[in-house]
Amino acid sequence: MYSENITKLINQFEKLPGIGHKTAVRLAFYILESPFNVAETFSKTLLEARSKIKFCSICYNITENDPCDICSNNKRDDSVICVVENVKDVIAMEKTHEYKGKYHVLHGSISPMNNVTAGDIKIKELLERLKDDKIKEIILATNPTIEGEATSMYISRLIKPLGIKVTRIAHGIPVGGDLEYTDEITLIRALEGRIEM
Amino acid sequence: MYSENITKLINQFEKLPGIGHKTAVRLAFYILESPFNVAETFSKTLLEARSKIKFCSICYNITENDPCDICSNNKRDDSVICVVENVKDVIAMEKTHEYKGKYHVLHGSISPMNNVTAGDIKIKELLERLKDDKIKEIILATNPTIEGEATSMYISRLIKPLGIKVTRIAHGIPVGGDLEYTDEITLIRALEGRIEM
Repeated sequence: MYSENITKLINQFEKLPGIGHKTAVRLAFYILESPFNVAETFSKTLLEARSKIKFCSICYNITENDPCDICSNNKRDDSVICVVENVKDVIAMEKTHEYKGKYHVLHGSISPMNNVTAGDIKIKELLERLKDDKIKEIILATNPTIEGEATSMYISRLIKPLGIKVTRIAHGIPVGGDLEYTDEITLIRALEGRIEM
Repeated sequence: MYSENITKLINQFEKLPGIGHKTAVRLAFYILESPFNVAETFSKTLLEARSKIKFCSICYNITENDPCDICSNNKRDDSVICVVENVKDVIAMEKTHEYKGKYHVLHGSISPMNNVTAGDIKIKELLERLKDDKIKEIILATNPTIEGEATSMYISRLIKPLGIKVTRIAHGIPVGGDLEYTDEITLIRALEGRIEM
């Protein structure tokens, strides 16, 4: 139906997460029907962004400078490390403008179903950082999924013997949420995590 | 929040039709977190596909060869031209495997609201093709929208005096559709276009 180069472009778009065949065709034709410089700029930006990106050698966040801006920022509290699964979780945390400590990006969570073991994610790199005496608290901010919980549990068991405080972010009803539509497990967690007013 | 190059990449994705900010962020991070060759291949394919694509000098379809495969195919009936608004409409028609004539892509429709006049789309190029005596019928397959109808009406008025048969694709209830949920205008068209059984 489509010529070879068009098919290749459609396939590229189709590889992106959440982009199905129809959307891929639409995006490919948008590029093909646009002036040449649209494709040129897109192509250049893609390669340039990816070329300049590396992982911070301390926290494994995505960065253009190593160490990253957060790790090299002296104004941030380096006695607290917030452990997250992915780079996007760092951004979510940063958007709150509340957290002033450092991060550690695991790049995944322990998931035997997907053949991801503790050795596949940046856990040993986290333990390496704990050799620094400055660190007083580890906040486990993995996702409230089975994998995220298992990962947090695993890490907390490794760290607690080192005498470092380990905390887990609270689970409960989201602000603006509705008790009626909250699932049972979240409600149980919300009850367990209740605080005195 | 994001570094300059990441922001640029997100902006590029956001320019694509139907891609909002959140999706753009997701796609950009997919590229950034993937191995380098993913970005490299994507970048190369984009530029290559766009570089090799041109418009057929006869029918204005997107093509890698000029004239395009359809125009240069001797087995196709060159006495019939199907006039469509966009390249994707050619593909839709071709998928039926029923139409064996040639095409003419207008690259738009007359739309005073969007400042698109008859001179902005490939109408004069269509009239130029009609100087060829072989052409016996023009099938107007523009979309059943106000703009598409106006464009068809405009073209039919230009062509009829030339003594060439001008037809419009049928409007009616789509196969598998439901009378109950069909809008009034489509129903009126379905009634008007009724055929004897």
